[in-house]
Amino acid sequence: MDNEKKHLNILLFSGDYDKCLAAFILANGAREKGMSVTIFCAFWGLLILRDPKKLNLRDKNTYERMFASFTPSEAEELPLSKMNMAGIGKSMLLNMMDEKDTPHLRDFLEGARKKDVHFCACKLSMEIMGFKPEELLPGIEVMDVYAYLDDAASAAIQLFV
Amino acid sequence: MDNEKKHLNILLFSGDYDKCLAAFILANGAREKGMSVTIFCAFWGLLILRDPKKLNLRDKNTYERMFASFTPSEAEELPLSKMNMAGIGKSMLLNMMDEKDTPHLRDFLEGARKKDVHFCACKLSMEIMGFKPEELLPGIEVMDVYAYLDDAASAAIQLFV
Amino acid sequence: MDNEKKHLNILLFSGDYDKCLAAFILANGAREKGMSVTIFCAFWGLLILRDPKKLNLRDKNTYERMFASFTPSEAEELPLSKMNMAGIGKSMLLNMMDEKDTPHLRDFLEGARKKDVHFCACKLSMEIMGFKPEELLPGIEVMDVYAYLDDAASAAIQLFV
Repeated sequence: MDNEKKHLNILLFSGDYDKCLAAFILANGAREKGMSVTIFCAFWGLLILRDPKKLNLRDKNTYERMFASFTPSEAEELPLSKMNMAGIGKSMLLNMMDEKDTPHLRDFLEGARKKDVHFCACKLSMEIMGFKPEELLPGIEVMDVYAYLDDAASAAIQLFV
Repeated sequence: MDNEKKHLNILLFSGDYDKCLAAFILANGAREKGMSVTIFCAFWGLLILRDPKKLNLRDKNTYERMFASFTPSEAEELPLSKMNMAGIGKSMLLNMMDEKDTPHLRDFLEGARKKDVHFCACKLSMEIMGFKPEELLPGIEVMDVYAYLDDAASAAIQLFV
Repeated sequence: MDNEKKHLNILLFSGDYDKCLAAFILANGAREKGMSVTIFCAFWGLLILRDPKKLNLRDKNTYERMFASFTPSEAEELPLSKMNMAGIGKSMLLNMMDEKDTPHLRDFLEGARKKDVHFCACKLSMEIMGFKPEELLPGIEVMDVYAYLDDAASAAIQLFV
């Protein structure tokens, strides 16, 4: 492994607020250490890449339209992975974060994009879910599974989140 | 790392339709690139290896019988990890996949087995859940945790799914 | 990679009984093989490090107090990741484990600590959730994300559980 330029690869499958938070904290920390970072968003992870202002329902079929309308329209709207555990909800977590001045998911996402974390959207997931590249945040690369595997195999750390 | 024959190791813990789909898409893509692939199925991941025609309730104790009867009998029957998220259900996902001619989980599993993805069943999980080797699909190797660790440590990519 | 002293790094994000069980089985197996092991507990994974005898509600704010009171007070109290799947509950799993004389999560945790698995608590998660170092089991190191990345990048196997 090359000590000078280590790479972190995260396959972000989950669309949970808390898991995405963990992924972005890792990504931002890695960038601050000088590591390069790819976040490959697949399935529910695609939801963090949606630009709520660019939703286009006209070019979708019925299922795609339902899916696009009923899922969270941006990162900050994602649910927790353990919404119901012991009754703690997302608003409680956000309140705890606010008391510590911890940024929200939306801020971590913006930070990661400014820090040149390489965000990619899984090509097959986009086809299945009916998302068009122009509905995503600007500058997102669409990547297939072969390119993901190359990127992950070159990484010092690969995680499936 | 050896560039000529890279290895992908997936510890498939989850018994979710969508997560298994992701695992198989990665596995098939890796095989198409010439990588070798091991999928080590533990806990709920064992459910994808069941052969519905070989269920044998007689040699099981009460808990094993309940477990074997009430869990999905094959890969295609698995639930989604986010069944209730925004009301989207598995049938909706399957409809979206059908519109794009995307194969179902059962097809990806068959494809992976034909492509010589190495499927292993976790020994300890089988003991706890009361599954016998003869209840699994043909050709599945039973593997212990030590052998898993050797396989994973030799891989260019290891993922816990 | 150094064949003599391979390292396993697990980022334990989940607070699920079954996923923690998987993490500890891997960790103990790795130690028995002579590998070194770090388990970095973040978010819900922090819950396994709580010492139920050391809960201190006085130094917490309202949200921290609610959080500390309503979440599981130790590893053995954690819920299953698939509590409701096909109606199988945690007590059923524990019964199946008891019939095979499989140790419980509490025993695996104790075993891992005796085997010198290196347990670390994520600094940021502790701040957000309001856990103090003195509320944790003895000998737990508090670690930040940069140290985690160094540890993970040096590992032959890194997993996000």
